[in-house]
Amino acid sequence: MVFGLVHVYLPMKECHSHSAGEQDKTNPTHFSAKSPSQCHARCNFLTFLLPVALLSLPLSLSIDSERASTYSVHSPHPMASMAALLAKTPSPSFSFPQTHKNPLLPALKLRTTSYRKIQISCWLIEPDGGRLVELVVEESQRDEKKRRALSMPRIKLSRVDLQWVHVLSEGWASPLKGFMRESEFLQTLHFNSLRFDSGSVINMSVPIVLAVDDSQKGWIGGSTSVALFDPGDNPVAILNNIEIYRHNKEERIARCWGSTAPGLPYVEEAIASAGDWLIGGDLEVLEPIEYHDGLDRFRLSPAELRQEFTRRNADAVFAFQLRNPVHNGHALLMTDTRRRLLQMGYENPVLLLHPLGGFTKADDVPLSWRMKQHEKVLEDGVLDPETTVVSIFPSPMLYAGPTEVQWHAKARINAGANFYIVGRDPAGMSHPVEKRDLYDAYHGKKVLSMAPGLERLNILPFKVAAYDRTQGKMAFFDPSRPQDFLFISGTKMRALAKNGENPPDGFMSPGGWQVLVEYYDSLVPVENGKLPAEPVPA
Amino acid sequence: MVFGLVHVYLPMKECHSHSAGEQDKTNPTHFSAKSPSQCHARCNFLTFLLPVALLSLPLSLSIDSERASTYSVHSPHPMASMAALLAKTPSPSFSFPQTHKNPLLPALKLRTTSYRKIQISCWLIEPDGGRLVELVVEESQRDEKKRRALSMPRIKLSRVDLQWVHVLSEGWASPLKGFMRESEFLQTLHFNSLRFDSGSVINMSVPIVLAVDDSQKGWIGGSTSVALFDPGDNPVAILNNIEIYRHNKEERIARCWGSTAPGLPYVEEAIASAGDWLIGGDLEVLEPIEYHDGLDRFRLSPAELRQEFTRRNADAVFAFQLRNPVHNGHALLMTDTRRRLLQMGYENPVLLLHPLGGFTKADDVPLSWRMKQHEKVLEDGVLDPETTVVSIFPSPMLYAGPTEVQWHAKARINAGANFYIVGRDPAGMSHPVEKRDLYDAYHGKKVLSMAPGLERLNILPFKVAAYDRTQGKMAFFDPSRPQDFLFISGTKMRALAKNGENPPDGFMSPGGWQVLVEYYDSLVPVENGKLPAEPVPA
Repeated sequence: MVFGLVHVYLPMKECHSHSAGEQDKTNPTHFSAKSPSQCHARCNFLTFLLPVALLSLPLSLSIDSERASTYSVHSPHPMASMAALLAKTPSPSFSFPQTHKNPLLPALKLRTTSYRKIQISCWLIEPDGGRLVELVVEESQRDEKKRRALSMPRIKLSRVDLQWVHVLSEGWASPLKGFMRESEFLQTLHFNSLRFDSGSVINMSVPIVLAVDDSQKGWIGGSTSVALFDPGDNPVAILNNIEIYRHNKEERIARCWGSTAPGLPYVEEAIASAGDWLIGGDLEVLEPIEYHDGLDRFRLSPAELRQEFTRRNADAVFAFQLRNPVHNGHALLMTDTRRRLLQMGYENPVLLLHPLGGFTKADDVPLSWRMKQHEKVLEDGVLDPETTVVSIFPSPMLYAGPTEVQWHAKARINAGANFYIVGRDPAGMSHPVEKRDLYDAYHGKKVLSMAPGLERLNILPFKVAAYDRTQGKMAFFDPSRPQDFLFISGTKMRALAKNGENPPDGFMSPGGWQVLVEYYDSLVPVENGKLPAEPVPA
Repeated sequence: MVFGLVHVYLPMKECHSHSAGEQDKTNPTHFSAKSPSQCHARCNFLTFLLPVALLSLPLSLSIDSERASTYSVHSPHPMASMAALLAKTPSPSFSFPQTHKNPLLPALKLRTTSYRKIQISCWLIEPDGGRLVELVVEESQRDEKKRRALSMPRIKLSRVDLQWVHVLSEGWASPLKGFMRESEFLQTLHFNSLRFDSGSVINMSVPIVLAVDDSQKGWIGGSTSVALFDPGDNPVAILNNIEIYRHNKEERIARCWGSTAPGLPYVEEAIASAGDWLIGGDLEVLEPIEYHDGLDRFRLSPAELRQEFTRRNADAVFAFQLRNPVHNGHALLMTDTRRRLLQMGYENPVLLLHPLGGFTKADDVPLSWRMKQHEKVLEDGVLDPETTVVSIFPSPMLYAGPTEVQWHAKARINAGANFYIVGRDPAGMSHPVEKRDLYDAYHGKKVLSMAPGLERLNILPFKVAAYDRTQGKMAFFDPSRPQDFLFISGTKMRALAKNGENPPDGFMSPGGWQVLVEYYDSLVPVENGKLPAEPVPA
């Protein structure tokens, strides 16, 4: 077993269920820093005790028996091995403020009061609309709101619906206050932006909408509020001052994806069989959304991320959205971006490495494996943990190319990022029917750079990295010597990992590669040629 | 033969071909005011002679032998009978300025110098971008530009392409200076608007693009300019500083129409068989676009319309886009709008009655018949000619609903309109495959009211008019007595006219209805059950 220290530089989410007085019984996957007593300790401002406790505690990883296949039993927690990195970086590239004498301490100064009371530092880029819209009700009101919810007409949420409730609840879509009403939906479809009475414009490129069918609409009748229940039939939220309007699926799909071809993953998952009506309104979320998959603590809200950036004294935050394993080309890019920002005069640019955590298509690597892979890559020292925050972005993936990349960027503004790295064909995929990419590979970057409401965001184009045979590592492509470079596509990478083969040395950290091989191994048909069910929820 | 006076209140287009030193031989349809000598007279500021000449001249209408079927020989010119109206309205509802003693005089004070030298009055709403972009080259440069064009790679324009050249040349799409380059195309598709370096945003909802195929792209090679030739192989324009980029038809159609269903009329006419590349650039149009169909003089440019509104001393201009015959419900609406504007404190609101003149789908009534119908309706006195300007809008029709209505409105800003009347389901049609309308009937109005770059325009919602049986006329629908109202749909109207039947008295002026009956008569199969070719170009 590998020992490591968790939460040294990675910020952690507060134990919501615990602070709400309920112990999390559904998630026996626990880490040393997340035992009830430690959670209590944090909740009781006893943080001064913790550094010592943490330093002396090995990582004891328990495995959820239902989800054992997601982890090899002897593996540490995905983010657990940061301590190894710490040892490799004895001289941080910036100094903590004088109040932070112990470099471990700041990471534990998490919010300890109620959900809404985080103070946002004023030097970070402002959220859209001027303030983060957080929609989780105060703890003191939860019981009453739950009682109210139980008396209302009910809408059962799908998995993707719940992810959107999560997104809305934490203010990623600020200043949206709930599922879109028709005027917001139309502005999103036609203008990818919303205009307010003040004249200000914010970017909003993907519809965040909730569909209901004829019979649900019938049940709702004349009610002005409805209750939203999760797939497990627990009340999740209340939607107030509702507005119900037609869900023209063809138009929504055509305008969002620029295609109505069959086989668009999000369409098949979340639209095709959805109801013919959309219901918008103001959302009150009963408690913070959790998935109990062992990764909730890495799902930091925009407010929590802002607090973390403030704590780290970042004077620039650059966000990197990803839904794929990290290879050394990515790492090179992120390191190089920090170098460029330092050259620009920033003193402490911090990277938000922000894997997408919601719905992804079947052939993408599931979140839990990606998180393991990211951890291994970080463990191998390719990124500096002192200037990197790894967190999970809760949005589902639409694969809507130039439309979606705006959403990815806009949401990160709300989390405090003022720089956004955009690559080739962001949020793109192969056309589901024709033999071509669905989007022009450069439209994403171009559209993003022109998008209304994103003027405040600095777009950092992705430099092309490839495997440089002469150096035996990933390097920025040098067009004067193209013959020296090897491009390894995602398809090729997946094929190698599926076959248990290795990419060229230096393409990806060996530990990270091993996780991919393990993932594809886990998919090998176990008997009678049948594939097992997906080993972990995405 | 009915005698009438032409151009009494209707503004006229200058005789471009004449002033350019070329007599218009292709259009023998001429009016009293448009004989070469009179055109000369205007060109030489001899307008003081004309009122007398006009008043004494009957309308002598010659028929183009090629197009005889478009007019019944004994019919006056479509706009010829305004004089009758004048007689009915001896007391104009506003006074001309003191300098305009003779009410006939102002209509003849048309621009008499070169195409670009019109002075725009500063009180009219500013064109988008601050000034009208007019792209017709100065007369002094035409010969040289034509010679240049003949030496360049050539692109042959379709009928619809030529209509867009016309649109661009006169500044309807100001500040566009030519066919869109990729950055404009992408902004149009995604944001329905263009942002400039200054930060200002103008509305631009429909792509104005020119397609070329692989072989044309090959011929163009490394040239930076190409020449555009009309369907008759005459050089029309030069496109400079060209940019060629991919024409993703599926994406263009999906994002513009919100549908990719087969059977969208503009798609079938202008996109389906177009090339796989788009070519953008700066346009130099060699001379004003004319169609020689007897209606060119009614195709007033935005500059000419602005001049006309200035001449009439309008302090508000309200535009009414139409592509259908005018019935008394329309007339009621337009009259009522003027009344409301007067109530708002405007002293002389002028109506721009602005039928669309470009491509329309096969089952729409062709332009020439519509113009005849409009004339009859005006002749019957349902609109006041002193406060009405009838002109032709040269754009093709896309039938793109909420996307297109923005274009219809934006183009009218450039012509000086600061009020725009929007009806139910503007630019809509039936879904080409499914049994429903393609667009929600109210989305057009909603989208228009929220559209970026149209904030300066006052949107006037269309009040619902229907046939009031108790009054025997069209009236605004009164929801307190629905049983009294009869809704006559376009389909029903067409069916009645096709069968030679009459609608209820008061639905449409008898003269206007007769034109429709004649039009449908002209479509009756002449022999062997075969329909004749469309009797007139749309």
